[in-house]
Amino acid sequence: MHSPASSRSTVRRMARRASYDPDVVFAILDAGLVAHVAFVHDGQPFVIPMAYGRRGSELMLHGAVASRVLSMSDVPMSACVTIVDGLVYSRSAFHHSINYRSVVILGRAREVTAEADKRALLDAMIERMSPGRCAQIRAPNPKELAATRVLALPIEEASAKIRTGGPVEEPGDLDIPTWAGHLPLEMRARPHVALDESATRHPLPALACAIAPH
Amino acid sequence: MHSPASSRSTVRRMARRASYDPDVVFAILDAGLVAHVAFVHDGQPFVIPMAYGRRGSELMLHGAVASRVLSMSDVPMSACVTIVDGLVYSRSAFHHSINYRSVVILGRAREVTAEADKRALLDAMIERMSPGRCAQIRAPNPKELAATRVLALPIEEASAKIRTGGPVEEPGDLDIPTWAGHLPLEMRARPHVALDESATRHPLPALACAIAPH
Repeated sequence: MHSPASSRSTVRRMARRASYDPDVVFAILDAGLVAHVAFVHDGQPFVIPMAYGRRGSELMLHGAVASRVLSMSDVPMSACVTIVDGLVYSRSAFHHSINYRSVVILGRAREVTAEADKRALLDAMIERMSPGRCAQIRAPNPKELAATRVLALPIEEASAKIRTGGPVEEPGDLDIPTWAGHLPLEMRARPHVALDESATRHPLPALACAIAPH
Repeated sequence: MHSPASSRSTVRRMARRASYDPDVVFAILDAGLVAHVAFVHDGQPFVIPMAYGRRGSELMLHGAVASRVLSMSDVPMSACVTIVDGLVYSRSAFHHSINYRSVVILGRAREVTAEADKRALLDAMIERMSPGRCAQIRAPNPKELAATRVLALPIEEASAKIRTGGPVEEPGDLDIPTWAGHLPLEMRARPHVALDESATRHPLPALACAIAPH
């Protein structure tokens, strides 16, 4: 059993659904597409969606130099990745639920400024959209690299939470005449849309692991 | 044209993708399944995933009385709903992107305590999982209702952001020999899983509008 890294990163509700095992945390992060990142500005919390990557035990975020990402370096922040896996239909309103896998990370991000590191981290973000893609495209030029800010958030104070399966039912509800169970959901690809005629001469990019084929 | 409600809810980056039109904001909220909610505790921002509903111009959140939802009433908070619509593959690393629809709301939530209001709001959360469902199930009993806290966040200081379509390409990149375009994604249902034999005697629940049929 892995223990939580801190009291504040300890899951309070439905603690039986929680995990602090890095392998569980990393697997969820690797299956997600978007992180929701929270930071505080003038006492007001903001939460915004961001693409992300993972390299080892760091969550990589990037943004334009002109963006609010500026205010996220070396301040307390939180990032959450959630994958919705299904809807749970009970015979009672109270026991309706959602199946999901989520990770919440607390910590401070450091800005990554060394060029080689920045390149490696931006590559990792592309590769998770399509394994092998970096070998086929133009790498960032110096101007593009200078316009991009990269942050690395340690995945240390982190917790995972997972709900699976059907509803819990109260014994007295079992005769209520309605369907009960769960509806599994998946993120599925639809047909690729080529940008132009010349694109159609090349193979389609490999699918990210989190996406079911069309 | 609708204007932002405040300076702090004005989209800074890619402002051409922003909208402050309530109809646009509401349509995105009605198509999502999970909100990411941020609040501050002891100077630390937390972001957690929560089921939600919408009633008019309020976002409804609920949680167990014992949960961290306790700390979310009448303090500055932020909620974000994001729907990932696709992955964008460019011939350059820099122009890779994600298609999405998102809404960010800033504000303070009020706790809803009147029983009739609580019931109506909890019903609205069930109905978005499956239209017509509330008529088929047992409503919350007094104990369940007392164990549930309901918060209403005004959807006033809110902005929507939408990215659609393929990548922007630099003119000099057009001859790079790789596929370019976008991959539309959708949340798709897999086959329903009944909880028990008696559930199979009843019709499947209606699908939420945001979910493509199996």
